[in-house]
Amino acid sequence: MDKPYVLGVDIGGTNTVFGVVDARGEIVDSGKISTGNYETAEAYLAVLAPELIAIIEKAGGKEKFNGIGIGAPNGNYYAGTIEDAPNVRWAKEKNIPFAKMVEYATGITTVLTNDANAAAIGEMTYGVAKGMKNFIMITLGTGVGSGIVINGQVVYGHDGFAGELGHVIVEKENGRLCGCGRKGCLEAYASATGVARTARKFVEEGKIKTILTEYAHVDNLTSKDVYDAAVKGDKVAIDIFRYTGQILGEAFANFIAFSSPEAIILFGGLARAGKFIFDPIQEAMIEHSLGIFKGKTKLLLSELPESDAAVLGASALGWEIK
Amino acid sequence: MDKPYVLGVDIGGTNTVFGVVDARGEIVDSGKISTGNYETAEAYLAVLAPELIAIIEKAGGKEKFNGIGIGAPNGNYYAGTIEDAPNVRWAKEKNIPFAKMVEYATGITTVLTNDANAAAIGEMTYGVAKGMKNFIMITLGTGVGSGIVINGQVVYGHDGFAGELGHVIVEKENGRLCGCGRKGCLEAYASATGVARTARKFVEEGKIKTILTEYAHVDNLTSKDVYDAAVKGDKVAIDIFRYTGQILGEAFANFIAFSSPEAIILFGGLARAGKFIFDPIQEAMIEHSLGIFKGKTKLLLSELPESDAAVLGASALGWEIK
Repeated sequence: MDKPYVLGVDIGGTNTVFGVVDARGEIVDSGKISTGNYETAEAYLAVLAPELIAIIEKAGGKEKFNGIGIGAPNGNYYAGTIEDAPNVRWAKEKNIPFAKMVEYATGITTVLTNDANAAAIGEMTYGVAKGMKNFIMITLGTGVGSGIVINGQVVYGHDGFAGELGHVIVEKENGRLCGCGRKGCLEAYASATGVARTARKFVEEGKIKTILTEYAHVDNLTSKDVYDAAVKGDKVAIDIFRYTGQILGEAFANFIAFSSPEAIILFGGLARAGKFIFDPIQEAMIEHSLGIFKGKTKLLLSELPESDAAVLGASALGWEIK
Repeated sequence: MDKPYVLGVDIGGTNTVFGVVDARGEIVDSGKISTGNYETAEAYLAVLAPELIAIIEKAGGKEKFNGIGIGAPNGNYYAGTIEDAPNVRWAKEKNIPFAKMVEYATGITTVLTNDANAAAIGEMTYGVAKGMKNFIMITLGTGVGSGIVINGQVVYGHDGFAGELGHVIVEKENGRLCGCGRKGCLEAYASATGVARTARKFVEEGKIKTILTEYAHVDNLTSKDVYDAAVKGDKVAIDIFRYTGQILGEAFANFIAFSSPEAIILFGGLARAGKFIFDPIQEAMIEHSLGIFKGKTKLLLSELPESDAAVLGASALGWEIK
């Protein structure tokens, strides 16, 4: 191939990681800067661009690159913009034309989307969704994100923002307040903080003995704590995952009625809870699915290593540039 | 154009209507048979096929036709089959290869999908969705159907059955029993029978005076009765539509989080209730949408005349054949 590489850039809340990736999904070189404390996107780019240019030069120059893919919070694929990203100081403005800015700085065609869409493309290019035309990627991290693929294409919708399945409302009555300001969103239950909130609730209700109360930081439990307790056979911890999995599985049954995907693929922290979360999701998903869909959609775990997935996902966008 | 016509066939629960349609969406000839009382698909086709052949010959023969499109309950686009259609006696088997059967009988390439998908294609070809690449068609009739278009293509999913938005679960607690056997489906609230059930419930709760109680058939109210009462300013009737519209609008907000469509287009009986149903849908849709989607998705009414829409929709499939 004339152009053996793509460059993937993942802009996270804390760090920005980037890597040169080949067609087999090997990261041949990589780097990292703090996403951090810049006032403006220009100030951030003034630090990022020299790093990107250096890694591009090291790989043989821009002629070797098919494209640059960026995964960014609130990234808009159509416009190539980052819009009002909640956790990134320099990205709180509307319509920052970040793809164009990187393209000018590097001389390489650049596309941009949100992190969950990038994860879906990464999974389709290098991971467990290889060859699939219809699937949904659900990222279970600090928030709940999603990337939806239909007929082999990521669903961006008419405005570039489609696929916000963390913000479907799953509890209409007395739903938990979500970071988005509404109540009852899936994210308020199935994110890491959602699980921690459930843990607090279950511990406070405290009808059954649980080793979670023995933790020194009992008022500040994490989903990792819950997992550790579940592994030890703690019934309350297992129930916390059951409760969370049930909400996810019911929501998935509704997603299936929409796009009837071949698979729903889980990625991120909560997905690592293994059978504690998988089994209840699977049960609820099948129980609540319409007859014609029952048992047809696979529930899978991402095959991309967590540490590389963000860069791989973003990089995969670079292969889509023709 | 070499092939100026398509033939549309709509298989309804009671009647099968068919028509020869030109590229501008004019129905130049049409006919009708009873879908009725046949034991087998073959027996039904033995009556339908001569009718189709006659109308084809009258239009100048099969060389004039780009294709035949069929809208059928539980129609599968990929397989060209009708599978276990609940309300059609001869279609209760699995995998009836109906598209192929019609193709053999007529000598014209034939495709088949369910009626709501056909309606979506009809709207995109001849109606209010002309030029739209991302929209959702919601048919509010005896049941609630949907046809979803993303990137200009109908969403069929991995198995050909995607787009069953009448069967997303909108009431998890104490949901109404739905015809599909599950509880709390959108269809159990927003179909014609759903509205009638709501009417019965509101009348039984009977705290406020309503002219609905004066109807002789008060135990058997229809959504038309409710509409007539609402037009007369009956507060309970208006509340029935408000209740129904709210449930629809909340569901639509979740659909928007999925595919961020340019428009949601309503078709069918309940949609004729005008502002009584439109206003509460619109309010609930905006209120429950995530910030980035608020007010972006239009709520529209189908522009196809109800009497022709089924045939037009089915016929539009015939233009997709290359």
